[in-house]
This record gives sequence, structure tokens and C-alpha cells, in this order.
Amino acid sequence: MTTKVPEREFALRIQQVRDYLAEQEADAAVWFDATSIEYVSGFHHVQTERPVVLALTDERIEITVPRLEVERVEENTRIDAVHSYFDYPGGAPISTAAEMLDGLGVESVLADADGAPGVMGYEGPPLSDFVDVDDQDWVGEMREAKSDVEIDLIRESAKWSNLAHRYLADYTEPGAHPITVSQRASTDASRAMLDALGSEYAVRMRGEGPVHAGYISAEETALPHGHSPNARLERGDVLITGATANLDGYYSELERTMFVSEVSDEQEHYFEIMLESQEVAFDAMGPGVPLSHVDQAVWDYFEEQGVTDLARHHVGHNIGLGGHEPPYIDRGADGEMKPGHVYTIEPGIYTETEGYRHSDTVAITEDGLDFLTFYPRDLESNVIRE
Amino acid sequence: MTTKVPEREFALRIQQVRDYLAEQEADAAVWFDATSIEYVSGFHHVQTERPVVLALTDERIEITVPRLEVERVEENTRIDAVHSYFDYPGGAPISTAAEMLDGLGVESVLADADGAPGVMGYEGPPLSDFVDVDDQDWVGEMREAKSDVEIDLIRESAKWSNLAHRYLADYTEPGAHPITVSQRASTDASRAMLDALGSEYAVRMRGEGPVHAGYISAEETALPHGHSPNARLERGDVLITGATANLDGYYSELERTMFVSEVSDEQEHYFEIMLESQEVAFDAMGPGVPLSHVDQAVWDYFEEQGVTDLARHHVGHNIGLGGHEPPYIDRGADGEMKPGHVYTIEPGIYTETEGYRHSDTVAITEDGLDFLTFYPRDLESNVIRE
Repeated sequence: MTTKVPEREFALRIQQVRDYLAEQEADAAVWFDATSIEYVSGFHHVQTERPVVLALTDERIEITVPRLEVERVEENTRIDAVHSYFDYPGGAPISTAAEMLDGLGVESVLADADGAPGVMGYEGPPLSDFVDVDDQDWVGEMREAKSDVEIDLIRESAKWSNLAHRYLADYTEPGAHPITVSQRASTDASRAMLDALGSEYAVRMRGEGPVHAGYISAEETALPHGHSPNARLERGDVLITGATANLDGYYSELERTMFVSEVSDEQEHYFEIMLESQEVAFDAMGPGVPLSHVDQAVWDYFEEQGVTDLARHHVGHNIGLGGHEPPYIDRGADGEMKPGHVYTIEPGIYTETEGYRHSDTVAITEDGLDFLTFYPRDLESNVIRE
Repeated sequence: MTTKVPEREFALRIQQVRDYLAEQEADAAVWFDATSIEYVSGFHHVQTERPVVLALTDERIEITVPRLEVERVEENTRIDAVHSYFDYPGGAPISTAAEMLDGLGVESVLADADGAPGVMGYEGPPLSDFVDVDDQDWVGEMREAKSDVEIDLIRESAKWSNLAHRYLADYTEPGAHPITVSQRASTDASRAMLDALGSEYAVRMRGEGPVHAGYISAEETALPHGHSPNARLERGDVLITGATANLDGYYSELERTMFVSEVSDEQEHYFEIMLESQEVAFDAMGPGVPLSHVDQAVWDYFEEQGVTDLARHHVGHNIGLGGHEPPYIDRGADGEMKPGHVYTIEPGIYTETEGYRHSDTVAITEDGLDFLTFYPRDLESNVIRE
């Protein structure tokens, strides 16, 4: 059972960064992005107006944080030294980071950006006011292909998503409130996951559960990013669900199109086209396949069925520590699918009143596909019977 | 009862932008930031790798969106025209926005940034490849002082936060799981809010409730951004809670330090210092008061009590459509408190094993303070009795 990123995984990532640094002849690698900092060091924080700066050299890993994160960094055995400013805007995060780099004897860095992201009103100087900066998103690229451990974490996530989705289906009935059903399913699946994993659970939530499940319903499903209406369910309503679970930062994505009690002929017609379009994507994809080829295959199928005017988006995205990660399965995307990429496969069609979309999470292997989500996809399994 | 941003409020915001445009002699205002776009137009979306670009001239408001947002924009009566690209990376969002600006006869723009934010792997050209761009965060500044309507929305949020917090207290007992208590309180308060507001509820959730309540407990409270441990509550545990409710995008912040059944003399000692430090902030703050003065007053009190080594952060932040918004109450902050600013007041102290922090949401008025959160703050009210 893989429920946490193990120490050896961090050792491999850090070595990969050091190899790249040597190749690029830079003194240090520097990150401002919270997800990349977590990927490299295991130090997890919420990105705010208070910058965090991680530096990695041949020999050491040091970090600059606001005072409120110092004790959490000290729990992290990979980080050799912590530097801090008290708070923002009073403190000087970038100067503090520059002093850290100076102490490391660093004159040139590869960085993910030339300064901290301008979120929540943060404004500060570029790092290049202090050292030579070559700014490129190479850790983002490292993160594209997942290791076996990362895929196992997403697989474990898919298991708890599946439980939450079963609860969603069980709690759904005409007259139920969609938000209450969603929250009950999330609560019960979270509790089951926490009690099942026990001491193996990687603590990282703040007053919320590790599992989220829910749906949008009725006319809101016509919008790919529709909302949950404040209205009780009625017979014949279509639902587009979503369920995921957080495993030490990693996510899977499971979505289903469901029906409350009844399915009209028109609903069945569009459901079957959507279901087949997912099969078309599964058949087209694999290692070495151009990303654009998979999206084009689905588009060609939609053309054949005369429903391109009902399409609103491409087939899917890579997923991991981030909910959406490049590369994207898009007709205009460069590049190809590679072993370790983990894709959501979610072609959808949308009429004026309803939407139809499943989403499954699928890993690319050396010689094919590894299906990580496994909730039933067929129509009969997705009709709520009273 | 104010539960939605009314039409007249958008008319005022749009007029304010047009006045500023005339003053600056620019042809159009342009935004890439999701929160600013919502503030000006009421069009709400989740910021992803797919850029959205809003443009406002003397006469018209137009927008560029990915195909999947087109129908939602069409519901918005303030936006005169919608332009779209199919998806990213195949589509060309910035070229599409440039064509929109060209159609509007625009040659120079005031923009919140020179291009879309680089989130989720988005990479694209700056807008200045197409038009003259003066990039400044003036809508961020417009948002600092809230109108009466915005304050009423935060006040309504505080009411539902208060209910959720009462449920948190009611459901807490030795042996309870902190995450399950948090999720139950969120579910029940969300349901009460949805049923109470009925048709007045502004739909904007996707499979989750409008109210969130929860806590971190025991040793995790020693970290200002601690987590909820996977362990049942024990007598003598300290809790740091949080509760908020979303009212058409606006939030309040309510946090309490609570104790499960028992309070030691040491816990009471630190609790009372924390409580008094909040009073010190309330006494110091008001219209025209320098931000640094309020943070300094609390720091001086901590010095007097000999607990500056237990302080980890400044006193608070402005809050509204964003959870953290500038200005910040910080010894190093420039500027002063102004009528319409809404601050969290949350000075905290942290021992090696436990933390102590309340947070209240307080608006600055023309002649004093308006307390928006109102859950009891005293020790006796915050001990869970069996």
C-alpha cells in the first residue's frame, strides 16, 4: 500500500535536479512555486502573499520562509537550513533569499521564475536584482512523467474516489438536495479512508476531509463548469459527478454522467455517443502517440455523429500534484504521450439543456494503458433506481 | 437581507472604471485576473490554463473566453459581446483578445498584467506584442475599500459562519474525530443556509457547500498553518477553529481557540494574553490610523508580557472577494486604515506544543469599528463541557 511519498523518491528527485544543474553549469536551482517546492523537498505550504524560496546546490538544500512556517520546515529532514523574515510586507523575503544564496556561495541560478508570484497583493523585486537568473520551468517538465510511486498514489486515490462515488449514488434519490448528498458522501468516504489508513495517512488537511465528491445537476450540466443549483432533485435529472481523494498531495479524477430514476431516449442517445467517444480516445492513446492525434480522433468521431457543435473542450489533461498539469490532449498540442504521463480522458458533449461527460484517469505505460479509475461506465450502472 | 451583489453596484463599479480611464487617457481597461474580472463584470470563473480577458471601453464591455465558458457569459447582461477560442494550447487566447481590442478600436490599454497568469502550465505571448500596455493593479486598489453592499454580504457570511461554529462546538466531544466533526458542521450549516436563503442564494458552488467550518487540534495548533491530525480528540486538547460562508463570492473569517473539557493553568494564561492582544488591536484601530501602528501596539503588548518569542505573524489582513487581500496590518506596512476596509484581527501566540489565536472580522467605518463576527470570545464560552 503506497500512501506517502517515500524518502527514496525524494533522493531520486534531488539527484535528478543535481544532474541537470551540472549539465547547465549553474550554481543552484531556485523555486518560488509551492507545488514545485513540495515536489523537490516535501515541504508543503499554501501559496500566499508571503513568498517561500527553495535553493538547492550540489551539497545543500536551504529555504527562506515567513516566520510562521519555521517550525514546520524544521520537521523536514531534507532541508539543511531555514532562513526567515517575520512577515509581509514588513519583512524582505527576496533580500533574505539573496543572503541565503550568498551564504551558499551562489552567483548564478536556474529559477522557475524571476521572483515570487504576485498573488494576494504581493509585490516585490525580481531575484535578478541580486544574482544572475536563468528562468525556465524545468521542474514543471520533470513532473510531467510520473514515477511508479506517484502512479501508485494516484491509484490509491482512485480507490477512495470510487468509494465516495458509490456513496454519492447510494444517497441520491428524488427530493434529495444535491449539496447535502455531496457533503454526506465526502464526509463518509473521508472517515472510511482515515480509519482504514490510520497511521499511514499523510496529514495535510485543515478542517476538511481528504475525499471530495459531489455533482452538478439538471440545466447546470449544460455548462462544463456548471454549478450545483439550490434545488432538490427530480426524476429525469441528469447529474455530472466528480470524486477525488488526496494522497500525500496526489489526485485522481473520476466523473460520471448519471440519471435520477428515468432516462429519455434523447438522453440515452447522447450518453452513448459520449461513452463511445471515450472508447475512441482509449483506442487512440498510448506511448509515442502524438497528443493531437488523440484529440483529433475524438473530433473525427464527433464529426461522424454530427455533434461537433455540442463539443466545448478538448479530451483531457495530465494530473498529479496539480489538478490540471501539462501536457494537454488538444488538437493544437505539440509532443506525444510518454510512459508515466497520467491523463484524464473526458470528452464531453453539451446540448442547450444538459451535458454528458465521464472522466477517467489513465496512465501511459511502456506498452499500453493502465486504467486507474474503475467505477462502472455503462448506462445501466449510472441510473439511480428507486 | 443582502445575499447577492445587486445590479446598481456593478453600475457604480463600471462608472468608477470609466472615470479612471478618462483620467488616464487610455482607450480601454483590460483584466486577466479572475477575481478582478468578477468584481467588474460579475462573470465568475475558476482561473486555469485557459486565459480569460475582459475589456471595458467608454461604451462597451467585451470578453474573450475558452469555448466552454461561452454559454455562461451569455447569461451575463453586462457583457455586450463574447469572443472565444476553442481550447488551450490549440487556441490562441491572446490573439483572440487582440482581435477583440482591434474591433473595439483600441490602441492603448490599462491592464492588470501584461498577459495571462502562468498557471497550470499556461505559456503565452504578452499583450504588449499587440497593443500599448500600461500595466498597474488599480482594480486591486479599488477593491480595498468595500461598499455598504459588500460589507452587508460579509455580515451575512458572518451569520452563517456563526451557525457553523455553534455546530462545531455542539458536535465536539472527547473521542470524536476532528475531521468528521468539521465535515458534519459544514454540511448542516450549508443545508440550513441553502434552505433559509432559498431563491436568494447566489449559485456558485460545484458539489460542495457554501459553508466551511473545521479545526486543527492538539500539537498541530503550535503551527499557525497546522493540519488536522488523524486522531480522535482527548480531554485537554486545544482546538483552533475556522468558519466561513460564501455570499456571492464574499467571505468573513471567524476563528476561535477552544478546549476539550479541561483547561490547565498554563493554557488559561496564554489564552488570556491572546484575548487581551485582540482587545489591544481593537482599541488601536480606526479610520485614519496607520496600519503599522496597530501591529506595533500588539507587539508592544507582547513585549510587556514577555511573549514576543511566541509571536509568528502580524495582526491581520483585509478580506472580501479574496480570502487575503491587501492592505496587511503589519509593522512594515505603509498606509492607513480607511472606511470600508474590512480586517481580520488575529494576533496569535504559539508555544512549542500549542497555539492560541482568535480571528474576528471588523469593518472600519467613518467614525469607528463595525464588528461583523460575533461568536463569544471569552474562555468559558470556548470550553467544550461534557
